[in-house]
Amino acid sequence: MTATTAAERFVERHIGTDAGARATMLAALGYSSTAELMRAAVPAAILAERGDDGVIPPAATEAEALAELRALAGRNRPARSMIGLGYYDTFTPAVIARGVFENPSWYTAYTPYQPEISQGRLEALLNFQTMVADLTGLATANASMLDEATAVVEGMLLARRASQSRSNVFLVDPDALPQTRAVLAHRAEALGIELREWGGSGAAEAEAFGVFVQYPGASGRVADPTALIAAVHASGGLAVVAADLLALTLLASPGSLGADIAVGTTQRFGVPMGFGGPHAGYLAVRAGLERQLPGRLVGVSQDADGAPAYRLSLQTREQHIRREKATSNICTAQVLLAVMAAMYAVYHGPGGLRAIAERVHGHTVALAAALRASGCELVSDSAFDTVRVRVPDAAAVVGRARERGYQLLQVDGTTVGISMDETTTAADVAAVAEAVGGGFATGEGERPARADAPGVGLPEGLRRADGYLRHPVFRTHRSETAMMRYLKTLADRDYALDRGMIPLGSCTMKLNAASELAAASWPEFARVHPFAPAEDVEGYLALIEQLETWLAEMTGYDTVSLQPNAGSQGELAGLLAIRGYHRSRGDDARDVCLIPASAHGTNAASAVLAGMRVVVVACDAAGNVDLGDLRARIAAHAETLSALMITYPSTHGVYEHDVLEITAAVHDAGGQVYIDGANLNALLGYARFGDLGGDVSHLNLHKTFAIPHGGGGPGVGPVAAKSHLAPFLPSHPRTQGGDAHGRAGGPVAAAPFGSASILPISWAYVRMMGARGLADATASAVLAANYIATRLRAHFPVLYTGEGGLVAHECILDLRPLRGRTGVSVDDVAKRLIDYGFHAPTMSFPVAGTLMVEPTESEDLAELDRFCDAMIAIHDEAERVGAGEWPADDNPLVNAPHTAESLVDAHWRHPYSRERAVFPVRSLVRAKYWPPVRRVDQAWGDRNLACACPPVEAFA
Amino acid sequence: MTATTAAERFVERHIGTDAGARATMLAALGYSSTAELMRAAVPAAILAERGDDGVIPPAATEAEALAELRALAGRNRPARSMIGLGYYDTFTPAVIARGVFENPSWYTAYTPYQPEISQGRLEALLNFQTMVADLTGLATANASMLDEATAVVEGMLLARRASQSRSNVFLVDPDALPQTRAVLAHRAEALGIELREWGGSGAAEAEAFGVFVQYPGASGRVADPTALIAAVHASGGLAVVAADLLALTLLASPGSLGADIAVGTTQRFGVPMGFGGPHAGYLAVRAGLERQLPGRLVGVSQDADGAPAYRLSLQTREQHIRREKATSNICTAQVLLAVMAAMYAVYHGPGGLRAIAERVHGHTVALAAALRASGCELVSDSAFDTVRVRVPDAAAVVGRARERGYQLLQVDGTTVGISMDETTTAADVAAVAEAVGGGFATGEGERPARADAPGVGLPEGLRRADGYLRHPVFRTHRSETAMMRYLKTLADRDYALDRGMIPLGSCTMKLNAASELAAASWPEFARVHPFAPAEDVEGYLALIEQLETWLAEMTGYDTVSLQPNAGSQGELAGLLAIRGYHRSRGDDARDVCLIPASAHGTNAASAVLAGMRVVVVACDAAGNVDLGDLRARIAAHAETLSALMITYPSTHGVYEHDVLEITAAVHDAGGQVYIDGANLNALLGYARFGDLGGDVSHLNLHKTFAIPHGGGGPGVGPVAAKSHLAPFLPSHPRTQGGDAHGRAGGPVAAAPFGSASILPISWAYVRMMGARGLADATASAVLAANYIATRLRAHFPVLYTGEGGLVAHECILDLRPLRGRTGVSVDDVAKRLIDYGFHAPTMSFPVAGTLMVEPTESEDLAELDRFCDAMIAIHDEAERVGAGEWPADDNPLVNAPHTAESLVDAHWRHPYSRERAVFPVRSLVRAKYWPPVRRVDQAWGDRNLACACPPVEAFA
Repeated sequence: MTATTAAERFVERHIGTDAGARATMLAALGYSSTAELMRAAVPAAILAERGDDGVIPPAATEAEALAELRALAGRNRPARSMIGLGYYDTFTPAVIARGVFENPSWYTAYTPYQPEISQGRLEALLNFQTMVADLTGLATANASMLDEATAVVEGMLLARRASQSRSNVFLVDPDALPQTRAVLAHRAEALGIELREWGGSGAAEAEAFGVFVQYPGASGRVADPTALIAAVHASGGLAVVAADLLALTLLASPGSLGADIAVGTTQRFGVPMGFGGPHAGYLAVRAGLERQLPGRLVGVSQDADGAPAYRLSLQTREQHIRREKATSNICTAQVLLAVMAAMYAVYHGPGGLRAIAERVHGHTVALAAALRASGCELVSDSAFDTVRVRVPDAAAVVGRARERGYQLLQVDGTTVGISMDETTTAADVAAVAEAVGGGFATGEGERPARADAPGVGLPEGLRRADGYLRHPVFRTHRSETAMMRYLKTLADRDYALDRGMIPLGSCTMKLNAASELAAASWPEFARVHPFAPAEDVEGYLALIEQLETWLAEMTGYDTVSLQPNAGSQGELAGLLAIRGYHRSRGDDARDVCLIPASAHGTNAASAVLAGMRVVVVACDAAGNVDLGDLRARIAAHAETLSALMITYPSTHGVYEHDVLEITAAVHDAGGQVYIDGANLNALLGYARFGDLGGDVSHLNLHKTFAIPHGGGGPGVGPVAAKSHLAPFLPSHPRTQGGDAHGRAGGPVAAAPFGSASILPISWAYVRMMGARGLADATASAVLAANYIATRLRAHFPVLYTGEGGLVAHECILDLRPLRGRTGVSVDDVAKRLIDYGFHAPTMSFPVAGTLMVEPTESEDLAELDRFCDAMIAIHDEAERVGAGEWPADDNPLVNAPHTAESLVDAHWRHPYSRERAVFPVRSLVRAKYWPPVRRVDQAWGDRNLACACPPVEAFA
Repeated sequence: MTATTAAERFVERHIGTDAGARATMLAALGYSSTAELMRAAVPAAILAERGDDGVIPPAATEAEALAELRALAGRNRPARSMIGLGYYDTFTPAVIARGVFENPSWYTAYTPYQPEISQGRLEALLNFQTMVADLTGLATANASMLDEATAVVEGMLLARRASQSRSNVFLVDPDALPQTRAVLAHRAEALGIELREWGGSGAAEAEAFGVFVQYPGASGRVADPTALIAAVHASGGLAVVAADLLALTLLASPGSLGADIAVGTTQRFGVPMGFGGPHAGYLAVRAGLERQLPGRLVGVSQDADGAPAYRLSLQTREQHIRREKATSNICTAQVLLAVMAAMYAVYHGPGGLRAIAERVHGHTVALAAALRASGCELVSDSAFDTVRVRVPDAAAVVGRARERGYQLLQVDGTTVGISMDETTTAADVAAVAEAVGGGFATGEGERPARADAPGVGLPEGLRRADGYLRHPVFRTHRSETAMMRYLKTLADRDYALDRGMIPLGSCTMKLNAASELAAASWPEFARVHPFAPAEDVEGYLALIEQLETWLAEMTGYDTVSLQPNAGSQGELAGLLAIRGYHRSRGDDARDVCLIPASAHGTNAASAVLAGMRVVVVACDAAGNVDLGDLRARIAAHAETLSALMITYPSTHGVYEHDVLEITAAVHDAGGQVYIDGANLNALLGYARFGDLGGDVSHLNLHKTFAIPHGGGGPGVGPVAAKSHLAPFLPSHPRTQGGDAHGRAGGPVAAAPFGSASILPISWAYVRMMGARGLADATASAVLAANYIATRLRAHFPVLYTGEGGLVAHECILDLRPLRGRTGVSVDDVAKRLIDYGFHAPTMSFPVAGTLMVEPTESEDLAELDRFCDAMIAIHDEAERVGAGEWPADDNPLVNAPHTAESLVDAHWRHPYSRERAVFPVRSLVRAKYWPPVRRVDQAWGDRNLACACPPVEAFA
């Protein structure tokens, strides 16, 4: 270990404020040090400042961390995966890798809740939706799902609520992917849904609310589900078809076969396998089911000038709004990966995709022929990309292939599965044919004489007849030059962290350092199948083990599962663990989940999906959990209390004083405590959930641990727990080498380690910060939030504070008084901030009429001051409206944001100047973000739902 | 080899027009195929269409080429280089690697000749100049040199012309870097400059025009040159000091020691060694010598509103303007690398740089102490980062270190050199100390008892006392967030290929594909010392050998040297080879170089620097070489004819009909033919320089072979020749394993293979295009140029055409008639194109009053049409000026470009609308490039020369 200079310490790069700036800010607050500030802010009962702890290694420099990651990468053995089961090697076009995946303009963007500054990625997502809808032959696709297995679950839930049947039976394809079956089983059990395999009597179809078809099947077989679907429809049920998008370029679409819902993954459209993720799942529905869609849905609306403008549609469906009435708990989409998959389709176009599919299929046919020629028996006569072959000794065949550099699937003792993909070559086919068929020559078995057997292929009746991807976008960006410019044009329309602060309360938009992200692009991490044998992924397993250990240490828990691939899924996994724990003790009746009124709506949605009943606990005037009400609720549900879910620091951005009393009260009543980790950025290094009384938590690696938000995903939501809950945390039927940590609950994601390929980001963050650096980040974040609160308090009251009048890592600015005085709304202020070059803070959460500001530790003082100056200037503008200087319906706020185009009108009709409109402060002249549209009309888009690329004429 | 689908063929991604578009364009020209077009355009006498040739392998897909590059990378053995000699391992901050080196907004930009759309990189270069001037303690630095060795040559030439002395003697430091000595010797010989080592009698100093000091010396020694400099000054000479910038953070600056000129490399400021380059050299001068500076110089001027604006200063000094009166032939700078080095300084700041230097020095002191303790004798008591140690068997020591993973320098049989750098750790020091000192324990020699010897260090009198990097830019971008945004803010100010076409005649701004660029970022190519032992760089040597073979085959030559790191240096190397050839035959009198009047000025400058006399050959009215005049010149210089330099196709963008007669005439007179490869993009696959009669050529890998222009460098200019010239092509004293190709001329660059780390780009381009694809690119480029000529001919006469009225790959639009009718100038049209979202074509070269348009093969039809539409619209605007509709001094052309800021003025005073100003066509509303300044006043900046970062107040 080298003695490091200040310039080399990563913490100096990650934290925006330097010592001088922090001194200035502390002086403004009246504290002499961050230590003193933290002692004042954090209740003494929980404060336990942690330095180096012996578990988290001392901070490495960026170079040292990268060298360690290179060494870990070197322990993943490169192999050509032919395992299949929903994961396929693919070529990411270099222009997309560089232009999207490695471009901060895409990966540091936030979820497109502010549509005016998100038109680029909304357009990309509309391409995604159009691609999925076209290929599946259905009316409407959403803007991505977390993975295929959870998409099937969402499809099942959608079928249940849209079905005419009152059955609780859901029929499952016996040829479904094993991970899908496992996730379905775990999720259905919690909701009382009975799963049955179809293929038995017709009676089963008659009473089911839905049926699930894998198309093609896990075995590679391509079967026609039309009759089955018709039977389910006849009894009022719905059909959910999981379809391979590449296969759909050659096969009849699910829509044409009668499917109501299609789901799947878009991974093989240019998104690396990455040991399981992240990838974008998809979900599409037939006409009439649009408003039932879970997840996010991009739609076309219009702006204040009537020009087409994109935005998220039908947000009233979403789990954070519907709370315990929600039908899904999915928040995050997989935007970055959905954009990549969509751009893969844009780049290849329909002809290119079809050509790839034909080549993949051609290799499959060739392999099947070669295997039959060498005497093997194939399991099926139909195939798109996968053949299964019976051999005398499957393990020997798989081993022989592995020696040649190929990973095959051992289905059982005498069956091997082999899947082709875009990267498969004729040489691969020959090598695998030799490895598999050659076994008969080595005396492992008797060679049957079947060289004249018919070949495999696509069933004639299932060949696709209709076209797809006919929108011009899928044919105008064919050259790399055109593609590069298209990606830049879209990125230029958006606002991301590479432009300025995104002070989103509860979202922790901190630095995503380039060195943290580097390893995700390396082939040793990218081109790895999630079901690869353990001996081929030692680097991954070591990294995961380290990261789990570190996260457990930092949070005061005993065990961590990295499987949940979103915060919502971590929540669900944690609640399912609580449920499993109670049931293991015979406490089957414990199903009440207490949730404070201030909680994020997803808490309630997750509880419902874990089979719990939600009971709301009141908050007091200070925004804290009302202890009296809590005790009353506990008493009222003494026998049925399952859990309390709280967020700490609270969703009000405050270190609640009574947290230890709260958790003790729940424990005393036999309940478990779930602490939502959304606000961990205010706690790390100063207190631990486990020490606060938490039994289980989810963490958000995309908030606290530097994984970028990707424009609305990926997220990673590990679940961390005390040891008594460990047996109920997620396991996976294909975890490498079993689960050494005794985790034995059902899976909540398709892959054993969820979004494994982005775990190196959080690993690098912890490795380079060290325990001391992470604590410094916490203190710097708290300092920044309190500095903003102090600077803005005179203009916008800070709604809630805790000890010493301090906030934690975020502050809620109350805009209701301003609105009362001036009529200016939260929306007006948020949109006006765009004109000033900022992304708006979180709007009206957790309290309507407020803005919640979280600056994070990564912003420097100049940017913090620029934000405060902008807020004060906007306040003054609002007061001028209030004073009547500008009319309520024509002022810089209500007209915000202002486009460049609006300036060119010769007749400027507003009572303020063009300069006031777009350059209210001079520094904007040097670096101006120009919103591409004016304010978007949300209601119009919901009334006139359109969720595919609009025709070119719409922009005329 | 897999059968590839259309979507996989790289040529389909590289060439912008698809088959349908090409058919449309051909129809507009009246041809049925590109083959027919090429047969009509290229003179039959030279047309020799080439398909696959057995030398260039068939086109690989992107994935295949990347896999081959990975395999080549795997043959470069990773080692920790401690060789020194001007090359040091360094950590490129990841934010700079991703934000600059891997960002097309930076690397696809062109040289900032259009200052209004180059303010971002001009600001970055001003940071570079300020950094160099500050650290060297001199008044003015230029915007980078090609490398240190050529910078020393330029320093010598500057000293000669600025010296009061009439001596032709230049004194050279005996402790100079070996490659510098070799380049100096080769270059001085051609110019009749006598080099002498100083250190002898004082008489030598008295008669020299200059002296060269290496500071610190190659041996690591740090000596005070003050007395030497004073002695040279006393006789009217100048002092050139090559200084290590990192050392200068601790050592007294050259300026403070009396140096007139400082030179060096900025490689170790975050730019990978890359097996020798590219890196940015530097050159700085004391006050009074500014106007003598070679290369490019960024200065501060003002725009039409009087706001500060940057641009290239004093262009009248430049070689392409001064032609045979030029004092330097350097065109290209190393902009991309200079930007990286400057940003490294911006990111670390003065304190960070100093801390790095202190750590490097600390390791050096520690190593010296350890070596002395183990009984070694050190060569010097002073050192910054390098120690030389006497050992019984240097080869054995170097071998022992290599086994441990370290590359040391074997100076001679008993001396080893060891250099520390930013990446050196204490563990490295210990390992090397053991490897070196341990030898005494193994019986290789007797251990002298010198453990109490004094340590090494910096001489007290040479410790730096003054500050540096005090401009705020060097302290405001310390966090990665701030740095990321600074880089984006600058990039957003510029126009590069990622926005739209850059139709620069003679510059070939084609696609720089992401897959071509990938390998340059891999550590196996990046972290390699240029003097590493051959057995550690087998991958590089194999790649270089292949690329040389391919380039030779494609151009019809026998041998290729990749050493020249710019086109100008390739020219010089070729002319020096001709010179060497004649002299080897006793033809010492042959020193006349014939150059057509239309030639690029650099041709003449290079000829002068090769010791030749330039004689100009006239062109005829059609723009071709006047054969009669050529014969007359040959006759007039029959005994002294050395060479003819021509460009083919001509600088007029035409396939001259008589090229075979021209080259034969020169050969008949005993001359050699130099064919400038600038326009090879119009020939590849259809004719070869060697077949046209060329004896030698330089190629521009940054034009024809897809290396990006980097905003004004790097370039790569290989020299290709027939076998009789091979012995005179560049060799290098440290070429790995000697030169297997019999090349034995002196070096023209510091590194054996010049800018080796970017050669994988051209390798990948050739590998993915294949011979057939390269020919297709040529035909597509010619088609695009003729399409533009045809569409625009009615508005702007096409000045020169060849066979069948066709142009080659570019066309010269004559704007003189338009100017005559309307008063609108070439400049007005060029700047107005910015408003339309284009980079201007080449202005007034090779003919004043014209625009030369080269669309390249990479633009698609939509972009070609967008350009033609813009030119026609601008033509119509000009006609309205001519018709008196708009005044000559107030119209959209003369006021172009229009900034966003100009729109907000409430009183729009122009006779055309704001919309006309900035959105003359509607498509600009979707994707608008906003120039950050109005038209820049070039003359003001030359009159008021300022070449460092202006104070912040300048922008108030």
